[in-house]
Amino acid sequence: MIGIDWGTTAFRAYRLDPRGGVLDRIEREGGILTVPPGGFPAALREAIGPWLAEGERRVLLCGMVGSRQGWQEAPYLPCPAGPAEIAAAVVPLPFEGAACRLVPGLTTRDAAGVPDVMRGEETKLLGLLAALPPGAAALACLPGTHSKWARLEGGRIAGFATQMTGETRAVLLQHSILGRLAGPGPGSDTAFRRGVRRAGEPGGLLHHLFGTRALGLAGELAAAETASYLSGLLIGHELHAVLAEGQPAGPIHLAGSEALCHAYALAFAEHGLAHRRHAEDIVARGLALIAEMIAWP
Amino acid sequence: MIGIDWGTTAFRAYRLDPRGGVLDRIEREGGILTVPPGGFPAALREAIGPWLAEGERRVLLCGMVGSRQGWQEAPYLPCPAGPAEIAAAVVPLPFEGAACRLVPGLTTRDAAGVPDVMRGEETKLLGLLAALPPGAAALACLPGTHSKWARLEGGRIAGFATQMTGETRAVLLQHSILGRLAGPGPGSDTAFRRGVRRAGEPGGLLHHLFGTRALGLAGELAAAETASYLSGLLIGHELHAVLAEGQPAGPIHLAGSEALCHAYALAFAEHGLAHRRHAEDIVARGLALIAEMIAWP
Repeated sequence: MIGIDWGTTAFRAYRLDPRGGVLDRIEREGGILTVPPGGFPAALREAIGPWLAEGERRVLLCGMVGSRQGWQEAPYLPCPAGPAEIAAAVVPLPFEGAACRLVPGLTTRDAAGVPDVMRGEETKLLGLLAALPPGAAALACLPGTHSKWARLEGGRIAGFATQMTGETRAVLLQHSILGRLAGPGPGSDTAFRRGVRRAGEPGGLLHHLFGTRALGLAGELAAAETASYLSGLLIGHELHAVLAEGQPAGPIHLAGSEALCHAYALAFAEHGLAHRRHAEDIVARGLALIAEMIAWP
Repeated sequence: MIGIDWGTTAFRAYRLDPRGGVLDRIEREGGILTVPPGGFPAALREAIGPWLAEGERRVLLCGMVGSRQGWQEAPYLPCPAGPAEIAAAVVPLPFEGAACRLVPGLTTRDAAGVPDVMRGEETKLLGLLAALPPGAAALACLPGTHSKWARLEGGRIAGFATQMTGETRAVLLQHSILGRLAGPGPGSDTAFRRGVRRAGEPGGLLHHLFGTRALGLAGELAAAETASYLSGLLIGHELHAVLAEGQPAGPIHLAGSEALCHAYALAFAEHGLAHRRHAEDIVARGLALIAEMIAWP
């Protein structure tokens, strides 16, 4: 089968054996924002045509391709949800020569009743769940533009909360006065840790953000360290908010890019929290797991 | 005399009588960012030439004109500072035909030792102080791109904290996914109050930001209400952080634009906090007050 994670800015396709092993992969730019209206079938065929020619007949897609801006909207499924609920809710897509299915995103509500949503991460979380003892309760963190913190219970995704950390960092660095202050340079773990510790002090995030500028003006933070300090500040505040809801009982299960996992691991260490790192392509495992439970034609 | 508040994006000049009364005023765009290198004397003469021709010989300037990007850098003065300390630290500027002085900005450090800075607001705060009983202790709030919260004690500015609320709102609305969600519409006090209340719930600011998007996707927040809700969220978090340091003993002294004062007054009311509104041009009063203590040639 073919499993695809089609996000806003990236396209990742996996050719999978029946046990979820990755036989071949394609990673490229060409996220859904680059696809013209009505252009999804052609874009997909262009990408995976060779695999189809070799006989693949099942395609499962997850990610923003199932959003309003994507190929077709797959309605959000409410939590708690596991492989069975998600497989039962896949949406068929019209596509010549192969059976094509879309994984739905998930929705949840926090204690105050405010909704939250994810698309693509539900599949990663199922892949991650498959690596845990059956039925174990765990806290998972998928850092990114919109970091997802999920509670896993009884083999299902019980609930989750999104933190807009990555995007906030990006717009502040690119468009605010903090960006004008930041100079080029390699990431600094020391500056990052300093930001994480600052997040635990009084004043609030909006005060700490301005403090980044004041430290720069006072010559107490180098231009080359500003971006790392800002990351530490934001991830520190994210972690602070998550921990305020309760200390995790076991290690935090972490999956994401090399750079982000490195940063989050530093922040966890500052708080004395254990973590377990998972491979970035747990999404392939999740896709295989869902595919196994679908009644294909 | 002539008092000038020359900021990043605006130029405000006041012709003042000896008691600080405003005889005439000029308000225009033409902030320091529009002035070419070395162009400050000419820009000033172009703006206030008619007043100089009528005999004015004293010019006092405050604001970002005294920053590294301005006419000349006036070093920050440490808190606590009152009219006497500030008047003693004004910086002379070379200008043909009139005595020209620059008001220094202020610096302070919070409990953790992290620096903070202001430029221009110190003059507004002195104007505000002049409207209070002599020596009274008070908490002042000057909302803006970078909101300033100052403790006034014994006729001086004892200390302050900046919250990067306005700029964070602007970059999120203009450059993040929240802006794509926001539609045009008049400000909504109801949506603003809802944001203020949301700020008091668990999850942290970065989670609440993403929640703005999730509420929109779920059809529970109208596009036209998004900007007001976001303002409430950010100002709510600002206020939450300020109140965490202690409840104000008296009313909060508020001075700023009509729209911002309206918003902050709503947020104060949500928290049962009294406030007193001051005129926006307290800066003219502050300039007159400092001028009175300067030994002019």
